[in-house]
Amino acid sequence: MTQTPTESARLDAQMAFLMEADRLKSITRATRIHDGRFENSAEHSWHLALFALVLGEHAPEGISVERVIRMLLIHDLVEIDAGDAPFFGEVDEAAKDAEETAAAERLFGMLPQAQGAELLALWHEFEANETPDARFAKSLDRFQPPNLNLASGGGSWDDYNVTHDVFEARMAPKIRRGAPALWDWLAPRVAAFFSAR
Amino acid sequence: MTQTPTESARLDAQMAFLMEADRLKSITRATRIHDGRFENSAEHSWHLALFALVLGEHAPEGISVERVIRMLLIHDLVEIDAGDAPFFGEVDEAAKDAEETAAAERLFGMLPQAQGAELLALWHEFEANETPDARFAKSLDRFQPPNLNLASGGGSWDDYNVTHDVFEARMAPKIRRGAPALWDWLAPRVAAFFSAR
Repeated sequence: MTQTPTESARLDAQMAFLMEADRLKSITRATRIHDGRFENSAEHSWHLALFALVLGEHAPEGISVERVIRMLLIHDLVEIDAGDAPFFGEVDEAAKDAEETAAAERLFGMLPQAQGAELLALWHEFEANETPDARFAKSLDRFQPPNLNLASGGGSWDDYNVTHDVFEARMAPKIRRGAPALWDWLAPRVAAFFSAR
Repeated sequence: MTQTPTESARLDAQMAFLMEADRLKSITRATRIHDGRFENSAEHSWHLALFALVLGEHAPEGISVERVIRMLLIHDLVEIDAGDAPFFGEVDEAAKDAEETAAAERLFGMLPQAQGAELLALWHEFEANETPDARFAKSLDRFQPPNLNLASGGGSWDDYNVTHDVFEARMAPKIRRGAPALWDWLAPRVAAFFSAR
């Protein structure tokens, strides 16, 4: 054994956090994957990190793909306590925010103090949606589901009776804000899908 | 529309790749998660990337956590064509390698040429398991399942009738090679688990 007591104690805390994170694999989202089943938030987080890795060149200038990937890897962990709120569902935003903040403090609080504080700050940055990194990360989070819906021929749009007008009103601004190039690519494809119905 | 034809064509290729990647969510592994169901390779890839993000301080000196995260995000994509080979199952290694290499060439070949070549090279680096980044990434890939097995009270060890001796012979060298500090932490916990049976 070559570990110092400190290293061992840090690993105890970090491994408890990582095993708690395993529970994100059981949080179900409203989006359906290619075979029709509902996506879970862990595989969703992986998919988004891969989006960031592949699509970084289309981000506005000045973002760090590495920071965006880190944000996306941790962005949904709060759902372990707070669950997933579907985009097109009805939700009490203030109550949801309070629940998610408490979840973030509990989960990142499991880590060694400085490391937990750093990840909590990164999660708050993502949620605040103001820095270029956070804006790009948030836009990817909104950009992935319509692509899955296009691939599956409707998906959550059908489950929630979403029309083209509703999609444009509620999703377009969120995607365009941090990733205008991705919105420009997506918009005509969504329009063609709805007009063909 | 502000996109150049080139940007639009690149996005066509990149989005085709990212939608193909969605299929990794349907590849089942031999490891069980907290609720007893089998893990899929997409959520596994997320979990490993989070391991790298949290445990980077325990890696041998000179690794890049960011490169390790990138490797882990793409390392299992070949399973979309080649499936998952359980650690404790029997497998024809040469046939498996050929199948995975063909899968990597097909999948990364969907991307714009230079980007696809870069990710293919990163996948080959991971598989070769020689650079410090690859060795740490590979060791994390071997370190996560025993932790899930400890958390669930047996998991894939029971499914494959794995004894402590078999685990030590087949897994210890693979974990120790790229992550000796993690092995030092894990070994006594695995020993205690098996001796309590």
